[in-house]
Amino acid sequence: MPPKIKISPNSPFTIENIPFGVIKNPKNPNARCASAIGDYALDLVAYTRASHLKGVDGRISFEDVFNQATLNSFAALPISIRKAVREQIQHDIREGLVEEQCLIPLQDVTMLLPMHIGGYSDFYCSLEHVRNCSPMTANVVPQNWFHAPCVYNGRASSVVCSPQPIKRPKGVFYDPDTDEPTYGASRRMDYELEMGYFVSRPVPYGETMDVADAEEHIFGFVLLNDWSARDIQAFEMKPLGPFHGKGFGTSISPWVITMEALEPFRCPTKLKQDPAPFKHLHWKDEKKATFDVKLSVTMIRKEKPYKMATSNLRYLYWTPFQQLAHHASAMCGMGTGDLLGTGTISGDYELGCLFEATEASTKNVSLPDGQSFQYLEDEDEIVLEAWCGDAEAGPRLGFGQCRGKLLPA
Amino acid sequence: MPPKIKISPNSPFTIENIPFGVIKNPKNPNARCASAIGDYALDLVAYTRASHLKGVDGRISFEDVFNQATLNSFAALPISIRKAVREQIQHDIREGLVEEQCLIPLQDVTMLLPMHIGGYSDFYCSLEHVRNCSPMTANVVPQNWFHAPCVYNGRASSVVCSPQPIKRPKGVFYDPDTDEPTYGASRRMDYELEMGYFVSRPVPYGETMDVADAEEHIFGFVLLNDWSARDIQAFEMKPLGPFHGKGFGTSISPWVITMEALEPFRCPTKLKQDPAPFKHLHWKDEKKATFDVKLSVTMIRKEKPYKMATSNLRYLYWTPFQQLAHHASAMCGMGTGDLLGTGTISGDYELGCLFEATEASTKNVSLPDGQSFQYLEDEDEIVLEAWCGDAEAGPRLGFGQCRGKLLPA
Repeated sequence: MPPKIKISPNSPFTIENIPFGVIKNPKNPNARCASAIGDYALDLVAYTRASHLKGVDGRISFEDVFNQATLNSFAALPISIRKAVREQIQHDIREGLVEEQCLIPLQDVTMLLPMHIGGYSDFYCSLEHVRNCSPMTANVVPQNWFHAPCVYNGRASSVVCSPQPIKRPKGVFYDPDTDEPTYGASRRMDYELEMGYFVSRPVPYGETMDVADAEEHIFGFVLLNDWSARDIQAFEMKPLGPFHGKGFGTSISPWVITMEALEPFRCPTKLKQDPAPFKHLHWKDEKKATFDVKLSVTMIRKEKPYKMATSNLRYLYWTPFQQLAHHASAMCGMGTGDLLGTGTISGDYELGCLFEATEASTKNVSLPDGQSFQYLEDEDEIVLEAWCGDAEAGPRLGFGQCRGKLLPA
Repeated sequence: MPPKIKISPNSPFTIENIPFGVIKNPKNPNARCASAIGDYALDLVAYTRASHLKGVDGRISFEDVFNQATLNSFAALPISIRKAVREQIQHDIREGLVEEQCLIPLQDVTMLLPMHIGGYSDFYCSLEHVRNCSPMTANVVPQNWFHAPCVYNGRASSVVCSPQPIKRPKGVFYDPDTDEPTYGASRRMDYELEMGYFVSRPVPYGETMDVADAEEHIFGFVLLNDWSARDIQAFEMKPLGPFHGKGFGTSISPWVITMEALEPFRCPTKLKQDPAPFKHLHWKDEKKATFDVKLSVTMIRKEKPYKMATSNLRYLYWTPFQQLAHHASAMCGMGTGDLLGTGTISGDYELGCLFEATEASTKNVSLPDGQSFQYLEDEDEIVLEAWCGDAEAGPRLGFGQCRGKLLPA
């Protein structure tokens, strides 16, 4: 008898979600693709072997697609096929057709990095964040920032999957007491509240992409914590930008929330772009410019949770579609599995990192219980979460968590 | 009768060289690994099938290692094995034991990108280059530059193999006449004379590498032209560093010259490091700190060659070993096939790019025939070359060419 799956009201993995990830479990230690529903992982290899996807496209061996340690093969399939797979899964769950052997309690699975990441780039696209960080840039928002999404190449090898802990890095920085260059463990460890998104359809090297086509090139979104060592970053920034201050580790959440799942949550941006963007970055449908994704960051210190900030993807000045169009505009080539970070997402009152909360390391942050501090301590854990929709009505889905604990150097 | 291979005195591929690359040819369009000797590519799949490597290590299927579209599997082998393969090839060539079916005239082969490049980083480590570029950085060499090798993450997807042409990119920059942001084809196209080197043994994510071990982690060197769009770069540099100004294309030469081949050419650096580097960057054996590699860059314009500059790898202030140790020092992880660019290599009188030759776009460059110009024109071709040793005596080897023609936008 196939089970009807109960989905508790606080589960991020609703029937409207159907995210994709890569799992292993003690019973089957082979990394393979999965979805999630309620408290269960849906093993897509077992699901395929049970002939559920026979009707989708006979030319594709979905077992080969899913019996892999990354989602790259799946993400590279045409959007029509991916949509059909998602709808088949939704149908089979609704009808109670999913066999028990396809379902593994989430508490029993280990989540792995969902994609092979060929390139990782990180943007700097929240006006409030840039304003709050302006002590790093001579106290002004650089003029160029308003004319194209600002971005740097990150280090793909340092992207890890939640909840892998992050080691405090050593590096060179100016000693805050003597102002002399010194080598040692970073003393200004920070988080950054971001989202990331993965490329599906490639843009070949030497070609560009129309901004209107951007949505067809995005597979889906994850949460992204762009851990930052502010002292190392400040030392190295001039003139080539961030390197080791970021490249020691970037955490992402394990479940990729697809563009299809996010479609009902498309909305206008909070800010109007002024000056108007260049034509190659102009987005026509203002009502569908971005997504309404409610974000939060929580710090767990000595087992106590402290909500540090909330925010929303729609606060970004430059949208993910404009970011991707800009990224592709100089013909660098974008591959399936490339990861783009949105940059820290702050708001008028929402501060996406401690560098902002400390007003550029000049003030202490106060916690409700009276603790006062500036940057992260060893064993602090950072948890990012995100939700779309309301608990009351309509479709609702969550991203799960992006967790990571800071370990000593 | 196996052929004795004639090696003309001006061939870069001497018996002391034995470089590694990836070839295909009309008769056998499968990409596979090769070496080069004189005017021939040595097909390493055919060579392995002829049982030449039977005695090296019976546990390794060299046919599997070489019958691949990249050198990554070979580069990941222990150094002792790679050395033994190289010595076997040298022995068999010397003794005339290499069968004709293993040899393909170089003019008949197409060279392919030699490695799968997981990460590409580019340094900024020539003091003369940094001084000459200081108009980009408020006319000073930033203080941090003397305390750690300066580096940024490049875009691996845009690394191409000589002689693939490069398209002039479009992007956003300040119009030189109006100073207004504008979108269009770059008007300040430049080359940069660099070398690149590939990682062999990985440094796992979360670990660091002792600088003394750096040489064991390098597979070999290539020539590297870090094409630059100076107007786009100037626009985007603040605050996150170069992105599209570099990421539209980076050319490398197809043959990887191994550390073993370069060993006889180790030498001290030209400049003394002052202040002394931090301990984790300190190199003990000053006499073997770097390599004596003579470099040149030639521009071919309307079929006429113009020698633009010469230089030498030993002019770099920070050596490749120090660069690699710095890169690994924040635990980002280094994988087999990662490419590191040395940065432009200039000298007291040697100018490795047009931004330097034009004194930051303020003067014209004069050619011997009276032409005067600032930046590259469509159809200009750039050719980098490099040699070790003298024509008169001792071991001698060349890198071949790194070519690329600039195509219109």
